[in-house]
Amino acid sequence: MRISELSRRSGVSVTTIKYYLREGLLPPGRQTAATQAEYDDQHLRRLRLVRALTGVRGLSVSTTREVLDALTEHTGDTHLVLGLALGAVRLSDETAEHPPETAEVDALVKELGWAVNEAAPARATLAETLASLRSLGVPVDAHTLLPYARLAERTAVLDLDQLTGLDDPLEAAERALLLTVLLEPALMALRRMAQENESARRHAAE
Amino acid sequence: MRISELSRRSGVSVTTIKYYLREGLLPPGRQTAATQAEYDDQHLRRLRLVRALTGVRGLSVSTTREVLDALTEHTGDTHLVLGLALGAVRLSDETAEHPPETAEVDALVKELGWAVNEAAPARATLAETLASLRSLGVPVDAHTLLPYARLAERTAVLDLDQLTGLDDPLEAAERALLLTVLLEPALMALRRMAQENESARRHAAE
Repeated sequence: MRISELSRRSGVSVTTIKYYLREGLLPPGRQTAATQAEYDDQHLRRLRLVRALTGVRGLSVSTTREVLDALTEHTGDTHLVLGLALGAVRLSDETAEHPPETAEVDALVKELGWAVNEAAPARATLAETLASLRSLGVPVDAHTLLPYARLAERTAVLDLDQLTGLDDPLEAAERALLLTVLLEPALMALRRMAQENESARRHAAE
Repeated sequence: MRISELSRRSGVSVTTIKYYLREGLLPPGRQTAATQAEYDDQHLRRLRLVRALTGVRGLSVSTTREVLDALTEHTGDTHLVLGLALGAVRLSDETAEHPPETAEVDALVKELGWAVNEAAPARATLAETLASLRSLGVPVDAHTLLPYARLAERTAVLDLDQLTGLDDPLEAAERALLLTVLLEPALMALRRMAQENESARRHAAE
């Protein structure tokens, strides 16, 4: 299809598509003339993925490219791709330039018996959150997080279950990414509502 | 204390403190002279809270004020304050101007038997996430979320447990807010690591 149809079918403006092409978020189309290229459904799917990561989830263009590169470079090794996909996505912009002391978090991960990349950004995010909560006088330590971590294990099982039956490794990796990144607001929304409900259960009688 | 000491002890610049005062995020100090006011530990604590909400969690100034107002206006009724605190905090900026169709989510909440405010922003966030996942070809519906919701119930119990023993209702509400808002990155970090671990468990042998 022409770039105009790609724009129409994806709902992404031609200008933005050209920007993504320049930034390497979208592979170039098949050149059919000096100023014309053909795009296919792969481009459409990739474009939707880019939109989800940048738009819905608000990732930066560079982080998005980092993630997409990880997906395409290692499509053979599902575990590696998932690890890269998960690891490459920063959890939030508050992550500091100079990484925090993660010894406490590393100890927790060890206690949990989890196989997690030493360089996973999640370690730093966890350490930073603990630090900021303490600075506000909230007494949390890695141990406060243990029961949360056990629930996270069960959440992860649900997550991975949704990837079964996807033969195309790239598709599996994309699905993993979508579920990881896009499901976050949903899970936090569920937590909010569950808190409201639990709060009602405990205090409504007051 | 003078504003200079408040700045020193909070690590927030005098300029920013004055901005927060203008925006109503911080109650005015006790005027001691035409150009001088006294601040106390309440101001220091509130300032740290504002920093946590705007800085660490990236809430907008108006959302932060909305939340803080909710906290102070209804300190008597713990459940109401928690509800307001939880409800007032938008989950993320992607929440649309025109709220989405939440019928499906409302049905899920009903099926869960949860007591949740009809106007809780979490309902819209959930509906939007489902919509965007589907637009990307990920087959999720409210039912996919049921097991996640049951885990969220248990997470909420852990959350509320951490509020027990706080007699001052305002302190309890502030704590609830901090745990709700600031713990989110930590819980998502735990999920990421748990996914990586679960992925290793399933695929590492490949």
